[in-house]
Amino acid sequence: MIGSGFIAKVHSNAIRQVGHFFDLPYELYLKVICGRNRQKLEAAASRWGWEEVEADWRAVVARKDIDVVDIAVPNALHAPIAIAAAEAGKIVMCEKPLAASLADAERMTEKISGLPNLVWFNYRRLPAIALAKQLIEEGRIGEPYHFRAIYLNQSGNDPSKSSTWRYQRGEAGSGAAGDLLSHVIDLAFYLNGPIRELSAMTHTFARGRDVDDAAVLLARYVNGSIGTFEASRYGVGCQNRITFEINGSKGMLRFNLDSMNELEYYDASEAPSLRASRALMVTGPNHPYWETFWKPGHAIGYEHPFIATLGDFFLAMAEGKPFHDNFEDALAVQRVLHAVEQSGVSGHWVHVDQRG
Amino acid sequence: MIGSGFIAKVHSNAIRQVGHFFDLPYELYLKVICGRNRQKLEAAASRWGWEEVEADWRAVVARKDIDVVDIAVPNALHAPIAIAAAEAGKIVMCEKPLAASLADAERMTEKISGLPNLVWFNYRRLPAIALAKQLIEEGRIGEPYHFRAIYLNQSGNDPSKSSTWRYQRGEAGSGAAGDLLSHVIDLAFYLNGPIRELSAMTHTFARGRDVDDAAVLLARYVNGSIGTFEASRYGVGCQNRITFEINGSKGMLRFNLDSMNELEYYDASEAPSLRASRALMVTGPNHPYWETFWKPGHAIGYEHPFIATLGDFFLAMAEGKPFHDNFEDALAVQRVLHAVEQSGVSGHWVHVDQRG
Amino acid sequence: MIGSGFIAKVHSNAIRQVGHFFDLPYELYLKVICGRNRQKLEAAASRWGWEEVEADWRAVVARKDIDVVDIAVPNALHAPIAIAAAEAGKIVMCEKPLAASLADAERMTEKISGLPNLVWFNYRRLPAIALAKQLIEEGRIGEPYHFRAIYLNQSGNDPSKSSTWRYQRGEAGSGAAGDLLSHVIDLAFYLNGPIRELSAMTHTFARGRDVDDAAVLLARYVNGSIGTFEASRYGVGCQNRITFEINGSKGMLRFNLDSMNELEYYDASEAPSLRASRALMVTGPNHPYWETFWKPGHAIGYEHPFIATLGDFFLAMAEGKPFHDNFEDALAVQRVLHAVEQSGVSGHWVHVDQRG
Amino acid sequence: MIGSGFIAKVHSNAIRQVGHFFDLPYELYLKVICGRNRQKLEAAASRWGWEEVEADWRAVVARKDIDVVDIAVPNALHAPIAIAAAEAGKIVMCEKPLAASLADAERMTEKISGLPNLVWFNYRRLPAIALAKQLIEEGRIGEPYHFRAIYLNQSGNDPSKSSTWRYQRGEAGSGAAGDLLSHVIDLAFYLNGPIRELSAMTHTFARGRDVDDAAVLLARYVNGSIGTFEASRYGVGCQNRITFEINGSKGMLRFNLDSMNELEYYDASEAPSLRASRALMVTGPNHPYWETFWKPGHAIGYEHPFIATLGDFFLAMAEGKPFHDNFEDALAVQRVLHAVEQSGVSGHWVHVDQRG
Repeated sequence: MIGSGFIAKVHSNAIRQVGHFFDLPYELYLKVICGRNRQKLEAAASRWGWEEVEADWRAVVARKDIDVVDIAVPNALHAPIAIAAAEAGKIVMCEKPLAASLADAERMTEKISGLPNLVWFNYRRLPAIALAKQLIEEGRIGEPYHFRAIYLNQSGNDPSKSSTWRYQRGEAGSGAAGDLLSHVIDLAFYLNGPIRELSAMTHTFARGRDVDDAAVLLARYVNGSIGTFEASRYGVGCQNRITFEINGSKGMLRFNLDSMNELEYYDASEAPSLRASRALMVTGPNHPYWETFWKPGHAIGYEHPFIATLGDFFLAMAEGKPFHDNFEDALAVQRVLHAVEQSGVSGHWVHVDQRG
Repeated sequence: MIGSGFIAKVHSNAIRQVGHFFDLPYELYLKVICGRNRQKLEAAASRWGWEEVEADWRAVVARKDIDVVDIAVPNALHAPIAIAAAEAGKIVMCEKPLAASLADAERMTEKISGLPNLVWFNYRRLPAIALAKQLIEEGRIGEPYHFRAIYLNQSGNDPSKSSTWRYQRGEAGSGAAGDLLSHVIDLAFYLNGPIRELSAMTHTFARGRDVDDAAVLLARYVNGSIGTFEASRYGVGCQNRITFEINGSKGMLRFNLDSMNELEYYDASEAPSLRASRALMVTGPNHPYWETFWKPGHAIGYEHPFIATLGDFFLAMAEGKPFHDNFEDALAVQRVLHAVEQSGVSGHWVHVDQRG
Repeated sequence: MIGSGFIAKVHSNAIRQVGHFFDLPYELYLKVICGRNRQKLEAAASRWGWEEVEADWRAVVARKDIDVVDIAVPNALHAPIAIAAAEAGKIVMCEKPLAASLADAERMTEKISGLPNLVWFNYRRLPAIALAKQLIEEGRIGEPYHFRAIYLNQSGNDPSKSSTWRYQRGEAGSGAAGDLLSHVIDLAFYLNGPIRELSAMTHTFARGRDVDDAAVLLARYVNGSIGTFEASRYGVGCQNRITFEINGSKGMLRFNLDSMNELEYYDASEAPSLRASRALMVTGPNHPYWETFWKPGHAIGYEHPFIATLGDFFLAMAEGKPFHDNFEDALAVQRVLHAVEQSGVSGHWVHVDQRG
Repeated sequence: MIGSGFIAKVHSNAIRQVGHFFDLPYELYLKVICGRNRQKLEAAASRWGWEEVEADWRAVVARKDIDVVDIAVPNALHAPIAIAAAEAGKIVMCEKPLAASLADAERMTEKISGLPNLVWFNYRRLPAIALAKQLIEEGRIGEPYHFRAIYLNQSGNDPSKSSTWRYQRGEAGSGAAGDLLSHVIDLAFYLNGPIRELSAMTHTFARGRDVDDAAVLLARYVNGSIGTFEASRYGVGCQNRITFEINGSKGMLRFNLDSMNELEYYDASEAPSLRASRALMVTGPNHPYWETFWKPGHAIGYEHPFIATLGDFFLAMAEGKPFHDNFEDALAVQRVLHAVEQSGVSGHWVHVDQRG
């Protein structure tokens, strides 16, 4: 584990919990946690059961007794660590966004080729979102017309935050774009496929910040549908609000992370007088992961999609099956972020690189 | 029109509007409005187009050129006016509750027999509630298990109100029971049939009031289902909140007046993974009154069920068909209110008189 | 009244009802209703009390005994009728959008100058939206960051509709842009002020239609905030859904027409543990129009903002005060629609003409 | 751990997780899990890390190397196991309801006296409910008028379930009363204090069942407020729905387990035009357990209140402070269940024993 902040805690929990809910053919050992603040590191190690602490990530990557490296540090460090880990033949798990720049993301993806790898786009494995995917694949939404998504928090409205790494271009690469927009772009890929071209606006409200506080865009998808996206750290009133809606010829899906165990589904084929949005409580029966965690009617929380990500990753690895999101998936997201930045500067529509 | 308060305004509006939305075989003339405060009366007459004003209801009832008497005055006056109007052969429309006492209600119902009559239980004609009725009659809820209903407002929490007629037993007959509970009891009759027996508690929070501030009860219905009811003027946080829920072997219906154009419907026969409550927006297509007022997706407001009540009443009269709620329906509600009062005093279960 | 379709019905109702809820210094006479289908026209006249029917709008405009002309016909006819009426010195009320083209809108606005005039952007007078305006003016939202708005219906998903006037460029001027987007642009003007520049995408899903089925845009406001807008007739799952949200330094406002009597308000100045969105039921006390219609807790419906528009218009006229929306306001909206069309074609950001 | 069913899984998870979120002065060892089905037992042991399996609970209770006994078996077994464990001086944790009968509950409580003990009424430690408690104690609700609560699931509507232990009086003691009602009675004690007297109805819909499918009651609280309660296994449409509402002179609180991270709060002291129910997202900042689990805006799930129960229990034990719910608290709930049964049979109001 490289990192000891909030997201390292979430990953540690997933590592601890995955064996309680998934039948894995692997035994996981928590060898070493690596970070800069020794006191904080030892507290984390003792709490989560990491055997050792270490200050230098290069030392960790060099160890022979380590099979998996999990990267939970500021974005700009993803590339050097992932590349070194890939060169050492490790399995690599990396927090999103993949990198602080497209160039980094491309190099990382090239290097990791052939090794099992994972990017922590956790929301794909929210049962409600996995069910959305399933309903779409069953054809229940029909021909897609619109996919719109919004991710708002209000972290930027606090000017004292400018000094943390998330508000520094050098460490983060971007602001709301990498932090928030990347999540909903990944959901768009998952649920509606690739974006062909886009027109974006990026905006910084706070003086002196060199990253975007908000990133918004219009998109044309490869499948013929259109979309709008909005990500902002100035979404006052919203602590951590992701919403999306898909309108298709046969139905509609709507999601709001504030009610993360729910999915709204509208079936346009029903009798007109009974046609309405229904609020599916996606805790079973027959929903994604419903037998993995608790019982129908019993909500799961923020950390469960991380556990499911890890469980699915190890099961796929054991069965030699592909796993998503991997570095290539995250690279595709990074290409969209890159196009957003370009369009934000130029004011033109930009084609998104569709390789891979 | 006997009365010039808020509810007289609502009735006047219905009389003015009914011909705009219903094809009536009658022409309505607004002859005279009757009340005690001359200035207020003349303002109401001028605003709504009543031809004359009158201080004495007996004079109104005695006029030959009047066919319909609408009673919108404090409860204790319902009986003398309705009885006099019936004796004069008028069509009588009466605000709910029918009377301040069961004895009055019985006398009124007896006298009105043979004449067209109406009691303004407006909520039956909310499209959402009329749709609930229709879904039940189509068998979509199956065997009923539970019908529970709550009516809360917060009017009682203001001690200065004790002196108005609604807080005087002599004028109102009861407090929350006649004012609020009567509405949800009427909905129970409409949607789930008669109550066989009940156990009630009545409670007065304010010192010095001689009417109930809250009336709650447990009920056994004739159809084998069970229910709970709660009505209170101390429902702080609720301006005018009616909620009910019906659970049956095949489905569920849930209503909340705060979203008066919606009805929640749960169909237990759907595939488990798609089984959920759906929020029907009951403005059409194919919903009750959807062609009467606006278009699908366009909400109606508080006054429309009053207009629909009047429209249906005159259409039924023209066709010689029965109309509900009439005095007999309202008498049945009054019998439940009477049983609530008895049980509240005695602490025993009370059988509800099932005549009529 | 020029027109006899749905919106003419809504206007007729407003004309009939305005005197019941507003103290007007004018007496309104319903002289003549004008349209092409004689049978439909006579039915409308008889139902709403129009004294005469007429096939030719020029004949109506020429009459000396008519003071007010209300235009409720397809968009392309707005200009000739309004201009002729203005030349005849009439008071003119016109359905939105003002015109089928910017050139028409400019000519109309020039001609009407000096005469009382009104454009039926009804949503400004929804109490919930009027309250939003009031809270903004009180400074409760602080410095604005985002104003986003969406208007979706699903009318376009029915291919049989292509032949009606709303789907013909010649008659409508545009599709979702004029029909739906115009409403939310007007709300943006009302609540957040003018748009400086925009980047738009227009899209037609149906083959053979020459109007846009969807119009989406990114915007920079004059006040420094940014916005996204989306209007679509392919919003399957949404009958008539307008939503907007404003995030500012001190708070947030959120509205959804599906719950038209509600406004969500988030006050960022509250104690952190009590900071939350509150669902204001905007029926009083002390809310816009709360004493005009019913009582606190009693919902109003679709037609009431039309009644309020008319009431405010006549009161402003009587007092010699300005009234909004007038033709100039609607011209400003039309300039945005024009810029949307330009940007949709060119793919470039377009500056919005700020005159007036 | 005595038991290997669903609730034993939930408890095992809490035992595994408590040290990750709480700083405990104890090290927990998972010694032995005990149950009748060997295969299921070994699977559970291997998954959660129980060192040994055992078929006979008496053997477990007799072991010297065991300090804590956790009882997660059918209700009728709670008493013999708890009493034996108490006699052996163990710390005892017991699933709710405390016992299958009041007599058992009284004996258990007497025996456990002086030993640390816990009853798993998990909902008290939902952050939303703990916040409700805090707001009440701060006086924000004022004088309480109403506390009403409903717990509905639809498990009873499946007739095939009659044979499981929950539908057998011999094993469960009661039906919906012990299973569901006990939870909301405990919440009533927590949030509104003891019930003085009650009138109840119990009802069995399914033929041949000897337990209640529904239990409803009217209550008078010691503090002068009144309440209604409803618990049913025939709440078709509701998977696991707990709702409660408290109306007081100064405000209102409303909770719905379907949105378990939310609490609605209405502050009656606000300006009338801004008075509304606010939907507090109870994930911080400054909310109960907000630093224990994730970050503000990140939801917790079903299992977290169990973890918090265990964490608080061990912290209280370490500090020699009282912990709730203990056996005495659960005995008070059992006395209410007993009164419900008595009143259900007799049809009379019953005083609730207030000892302890």
